[in-house]
Amino acid sequence: MAHRDLTTDFDARRAGSELHALMTRLYPIGRSITGDGIRETFRILSENLPLQVHRVPTGTPAFDWTVPREWTIRDAFIENSRGERVVDWKRSSLHVVGYSTPVDARMRLAELRPHLHSLPDHPDRIPYRTSYYRETWGFCLTHRLLESLPDDDYHVRIDASLEDGHLDYAECTVGDGEAGDVLVSTHACHPSLCNDNLSGVVVAHGLARALAGRALRHRYVFVFIPTIIGSIVWLSRNEDRAARIRHGLVLACLGDAGALTYKRSRRGDAFVDRAAAHVAGEAGGSVRPFVPYGYDERNYCSPGFDLPVGALSRTPHGEFPEYHSSADDLSFVRPESLGGSLEACLRIVDVIENERTLRNLNPKCEPQLGKRGLYNVTGGLRADQRDELAMFWVLNQSDGEHSLLDVAERSGIPFRIVARAAERLESAGLLAPVEGRA
Amino acid sequence: MAHRDLTTDFDARRAGSELHALMTRLYPIGRSITGDGIRETFRILSENLPLQVHRVPTGTPAFDWTVPREWTIRDAFIENSRGERVVDWKRSSLHVVGYSTPVDARMRLAELRPHLHSLPDHPDRIPYRTSYYRETWGFCLTHRLLESLPDDDYHVRIDASLEDGHLDYAECTVGDGEAGDVLVSTHACHPSLCNDNLSGVVVAHGLARALAGRALRHRYVFVFIPTIIGSIVWLSRNEDRAARIRHGLVLACLGDAGALTYKRSRRGDAFVDRAAAHVAGEAGGSVRPFVPYGYDERNYCSPGFDLPVGALSRTPHGEFPEYHSSADDLSFVRPESLGGSLEACLRIVDVIENERTLRNLNPKCEPQLGKRGLYNVTGGLRADQRDELAMFWVLNQSDGEHSLLDVAERSGIPFRIVARAAERLESAGLLAPVEGRA
Amino acid sequence: MAHRDLTTDFDARRAGSELHALMTRLYPIGRSITGDGIRETFRILSENLPLQVHRVPTGTPAFDWTVPREWTIRDAFIENSRGERVVDWKRSSLHVVGYSTPVDARMRLAELRPHLHSLPDHPDRIPYRTSYYRETWGFCLTHRLLESLPDDDYHVRIDASLEDGHLDYAECTVGDGEAGDVLVSTHACHPSLCNDNLSGVVVAHGLARALAGRALRHRYVFVFIPTIIGSIVWLSRNEDRAARIRHGLVLACLGDAGALTYKRSRRGDAFVDRAAAHVAGEAGGSVRPFVPYGYDERNYCSPGFDLPVGALSRTPHGEFPEYHSSADDLSFVRPESLGGSLEACLRIVDVIENERTLRNLNPKCEPQLGKRGLYNVTGGLRADQRDELAMFWVLNQSDGEHSLLDVAERSGIPFRIVARAAERLESAGLLAPVEGRA
Repeated sequence: MAHRDLTTDFDARRAGSELHALMTRLYPIGRSITGDGIRETFRILSENLPLQVHRVPTGTPAFDWTVPREWTIRDAFIENSRGERVVDWKRSSLHVVGYSTPVDARMRLAELRPHLHSLPDHPDRIPYRTSYYRETWGFCLTHRLLESLPDDDYHVRIDASLEDGHLDYAECTVGDGEAGDVLVSTHACHPSLCNDNLSGVVVAHGLARALAGRALRHRYVFVFIPTIIGSIVWLSRNEDRAARIRHGLVLACLGDAGALTYKRSRRGDAFVDRAAAHVAGEAGGSVRPFVPYGYDERNYCSPGFDLPVGALSRTPHGEFPEYHSSADDLSFVRPESLGGSLEACLRIVDVIENERTLRNLNPKCEPQLGKRGLYNVTGGLRADQRDELAMFWVLNQSDGEHSLLDVAERSGIPFRIVARAAERLESAGLLAPVEGRA
Repeated sequence: MAHRDLTTDFDARRAGSELHALMTRLYPIGRSITGDGIRETFRILSENLPLQVHRVPTGTPAFDWTVPREWTIRDAFIENSRGERVVDWKRSSLHVVGYSTPVDARMRLAELRPHLHSLPDHPDRIPYRTSYYRETWGFCLTHRLLESLPDDDYHVRIDASLEDGHLDYAECTVGDGEAGDVLVSTHACHPSLCNDNLSGVVVAHGLARALAGRALRHRYVFVFIPTIIGSIVWLSRNEDRAARIRHGLVLACLGDAGALTYKRSRRGDAFVDRAAAHVAGEAGGSVRPFVPYGYDERNYCSPGFDLPVGALSRTPHGEFPEYHSSADDLSFVRPESLGGSLEACLRIVDVIENERTLRNLNPKCEPQLGKRGLYNVTGGLRADQRDELAMFWVLNQSDGEHSLLDVAERSGIPFRIVARAAERLESAGLLAPVEGRA
Repeated sequence: MAHRDLTTDFDARRAGSELHALMTRLYPIGRSITGDGIRETFRILSENLPLQVHRVPTGTPAFDWTVPREWTIRDAFIENSRGERVVDWKRSSLHVVGYSTPVDARMRLAELRPHLHSLPDHPDRIPYRTSYYRETWGFCLTHRLLESLPDDDYHVRIDASLEDGHLDYAECTVGDGEAGDVLVSTHACHPSLCNDNLSGVVVAHGLARALAGRALRHRYVFVFIPTIIGSIVWLSRNEDRAARIRHGLVLACLGDAGALTYKRSRRGDAFVDRAAAHVAGEAGGSVRPFVPYGYDERNYCSPGFDLPVGALSRTPHGEFPEYHSSADDLSFVRPESLGGSLEACLRIVDVIENERTLRNLNPKCEPQLGKRGLYNVTGGLRADQRDELAMFWVLNQSDGEHSLLDVAERSGIPFRIVARAAERLESAGLLAPVEGRA
C-alpha cells in the first residue's frame, strides 16, 4: 500500500487565510446552544460541505439530562432616560447573558446593577456569560462603561423567548474505509468569540473538506455541536456508532499564537494519544494528561464510553487572558495559526491512515542499500540526514512486531519521514507488510 | 459508609503544645535500651493511655540475637584533685557512654583521655554515644571542656551494673476493626534527646490517644521499643501478629523545622507508601526510596518479613547537625512541628480508613450536578475549585476499578477532598460502593 | 564461589602506557578494509596474543553483500611541473581516498580539482575519505595546501590495484567457561587514525591479554574486523556461534579525554546493557539508547540476530572535531584514557563473571554482624561506609529473587563493593548461593 501523505501539497498559508475568511463570516452571528444562531452557522458551513443537520425536540431525554427549551432573542438593550441605548445587543451578541429570560421594565441603577456583568481586571472587554440551567437575565458590558453609568431611570428590555423547540447539531461523514470510525467533534455554540470556538469550527470544517474525496482507510465522522449538552445528546442517540469509534479528537482554541497542546484521552495511551502527541511534539507543542473537565471530551471519556478521544488546542481554554471576552475577536486569531492547526490535524490523520507494520525481508545484517540506489553517502551520516536514518530505523525495527509509529516514537524521527522511508524500502523489495496488523 | 475525616476538628497548634509539654516531662530521664529509664518513660506514657508493658528476660533468644543484660546506672562523674566534679552524669544523661561498664579509679589525664568523647566541630555540644555490644566505658563531654582539662589526678567513677534483668517494651492496641492491623512503631530508648526520639514517642502517643474510642476499620498496634533489638524481640515474639500487619509506620525525628520525609517500605509501592507519599507531598514534604538502614523499619522490612512498613520523619536522622548531641534539646524541637507531624499521621490514617472503591451509577456522560444542587458555577471552574473538580474526577474514575486514593493520585487533589466529594455524590445517589474491594 | 575482582591488581596508568606504545607501532600502517595494511596489523597484534586470521575470498556471498575485491596501494602522489611531490601518500596514508582506482596522468589543476578533498573549517587537517562501493579516485589534503596550489601541469599517480583477493579478519578466544560466549568486536580497518579506531583495537587487545589464563565462567570471543563488511562476513560464517552469544561489546573511540559513553543494544535492557550502564555510571559516564547506526553493533543488532551487544566508547564517533581527520593522531589519544577504558572493560567483565543470586540464611531481622566481626561501628554509619552499607543491602535483598547486580542497581553502590560484601557474608555463613540462577 502506497503512502499517501496528506500534507504533501498542503499550503498552510493559503489554508489559514481561507479559514480566517470563513470565520469572519461566522463571527457576527449570535449563537447559543439552541436557536437560530447555530442554525445559521450550520447553513453557512454546509455551503461547500454536505452537512446533515439533526433536530432534537425539547424535552427529549439524554441519559441524565433533558434537551432544554430553545432560546430566541430578537432584541435587547438598556436605554437611559434620554432614550439613548447605552447597551445594545445589536452591537455585540456578548451583551446579553445567554439564555436570559425576557424582561421589559424600568428600573433605577441599584435594581439593575445585580444583572450587570463586567471584568474589572480588563475594563475594556465585554465578558461572555450564560445561564443555561438557572433562569435569570443579565447584561454584559465593559467595566469602564459600567463604572460610568449614572443613577437614572433605565428602560431595560430583553426581547427573548424560551420555548419548546429543538436542539440542533450537524454531522458530516467523509471516507468509507472499513478500518473503523474517527470522530472529530467541535462546539459551535459560542457567540462572537473567535478562538473559543470559531477556530475549532473552521479547522474541523477545513479538515473535512481536505479529506473529502480521498481514498481513506477509515470513515471520519465530523460533529458540530453545542458544547456539553451536544455531546450528551449525540452519544445518547448514537451508542452503536460510538462503539465503532477507533480514534477521536475534540477541536477547540486552535487560532491563537500559542504552541499546540494535546490533552490525552482518559485511556492515556490510546493510539490517537500517541499519534497526536507525536505530531504535537514534532511541531514544538506539548502534551497534557487527561482531566475530566474541559469540552466535550469529558463526555466521550466518561467511564460508560471511555472512548479514545483526546483534545487538540493551542493555548487551552481559560489560560489565555482574552478567554470568554470580547477580546477573543478576529484580530486575536491568526490565519497562520489556523493553517498550522489544520496541518497538524492532517498529520494526525496521516498517522492514523498510514500506520502499518512491515517485515524486513533481509533481517540478518543490513541490506546493501547502495547497490539499490537508496544510499549515496560518502563518509557517514549527518544528524540531519533523516531520510537515510529513517531507512536504517525501519529496517532495524521491522521484525513484524513494531509498527511505523513505534519506529517514529523510538527514533524521534517524524512519522511522515519514517513512512516515506518504509515506502522506498518496500518499493525496493526489502520490506513486506505483515498481514493482520495495523 | 460515611467519611470520617480525623483532622476535621484537629487543632494542630494545641496538639503541638501538649506533645511538647509531655516531651518536657520525659526529657530529663536517663534512658537506655534496658533499665529503669525506659520503664519510667513507659509509666508516664501510660498515665492517659492503656499501655501494656512486656518484660523479656536477659538471655532470651530472638532470631540471631539474644536479649542483653540490663544496664543500671546510679551515678557517674569525673572529679579533679580538688574534689570538683568536672563531669557529672546528674547534669546530663548524655555524659556517660551508654552501657558503660563500672569503673572506680584514679588516673592521670593521659590514661583517661581515650575514654573521653567530644565533637571538635561543635565544641559546645555533648555527643551521644553507646556501646551496647562491646564492653567498655566512657564519658561524653563538650570539646571546650575536654580541651580545658589540665593534667591532674582524676577520680573516675561510673556506678553502673550490667546484670541479668529484662528488656522492656510497651504496647497499646486501639480500635478493633477487622480490616487488618496497622503497626505504629517508635523507639523510646534514647536518653535526653528530643528530636531523636522523644518526638516520635510523643507523636505516636498522641496518635494513639486521638484514635482511641473512634470507630475504626482497622486495629492499630502501637509499639514503644528500644531501637533495633526491640523490633527484633517484638517480631520474634509476634510472628503470627506480624503476618496480620496490613500497613505500618515507624515514627522518628518528627519535631524539627524541616519538611516531612517519607521513606518507602522495602516493597516500595505498598498501600502505606502511596498513602504516606500522598500526604507528605500535599504537605510539601518529600519521599525517599527504601534503604535497609535507619531505625526499626530495617527489621520490619527484612526479607523474612517484608512488611509494608515505611518511616515518617522530618529531617531524617543524621542529616541535622544537632543529631545525637546535647543540641537536640527541648528548644530544637518546635511544638508546631510536632502538631503538624501528628496531623500528617492522622491524614495517613484517614487514607487507610477511608480508602474505598465506588461505582458511578450514571457512567454514560456526566450526570447533571446542577439539578442536584452539587454544582453552582457560572462560567467554568477555576483551578482553586477543588471540591467541584474532585466530583468530576470521582465520577470519571469510578468505573469499579479505581479507588479514592487512585483518584487522588491521578488528579493531584488531596485525598480528603476527594473522599468528601465521593461522600456528597454518594449521598446524591450517584455512586455506590463496589463490594469486595477496599 | 569466591569473588574474583579483575581490577584488584590492575594498574591503569601502566596499562595505558603499554596500550599507547602498541598504538604508536600500529599508527603509521596504511590500513583499509582489505589488503596488506590490516594483515600487518594482525601480525603485530599476534606477537603476544594467539590470533587466528581468517581469509575470505573476493566474491564470497555474505547475506545481502559480497566480499569485495582487495585493494593494494604501492605509491601515490601529486607532482608539480618542477618535479616536487606536493602530496605524497608516503607522508600520510590519509592522503589517498580509500579504494581509489589507479591513475597515472598529467592534468591541469582544473581537471584535478574535483578529485581533491579538504576540510575548509579545519584548514590544517587532512580528511579521511573512502569510496569502497563506488569506483573513483581522489586525494585528501589540508585546505591550506589546496588553496595554495597554483595552476600547473600536475603529474597525478595512484599506483593501486583492485583485484580478487581476500578479506581478512582475526579472532582470539579466551576462557573456556560454559556460561556462554561473550563477544568483543572492534574494527581494525581505519588507517592512521588513533581514536577511531586504534584505541578500540589496543583496548580489545589489552582486554584479551588481561583475561588470558584466568579461570572464567564464560568464553570470550574477540574479533578484529574491517567495519560493517567485517561483521556481516563474520555473522554469515558464524550463525551457530552467534546464537551462543550471551553478552557483547563493540569497542571504538576509547582514547580521547571524554567520559565513557555506553550505547545500549537493540534490546535496551540486556544484561550487558545493565552491566555496562552501571560501570559507565560509576565512572561518571553516560548511557545512550540504541540507534541502528554507528559501527558493527548495527549488524549484531539487526533484527535477524538481535544480539545483546552494546557499544562502549568515550566521545562517540563523529562528535569530536578531530574525527576522521589527521588530527585524530597519537597526541589526541591519551594513555590515561586508554587505561581507564580498559579498566572499565574489566569491570564490565567483572559483573558478567561474578553476577549471582544468593539467599539470606537469617532472613528474619538482621543477623548480628558485630559478633561475627563484620561490623565495628560506634554511633551509626556514615554515607562513605559503603562496605557496611553493601552488607545491609545484600542481606536485605537476598531473598532468592535479586541478584548482585540488582542490589548494585537498587543501592547505587558499585557492583564490586556489593560482590565483596556478599563474599564476606557468604564466608560468615550468612548467605548461600541460589542454585539454578545466574
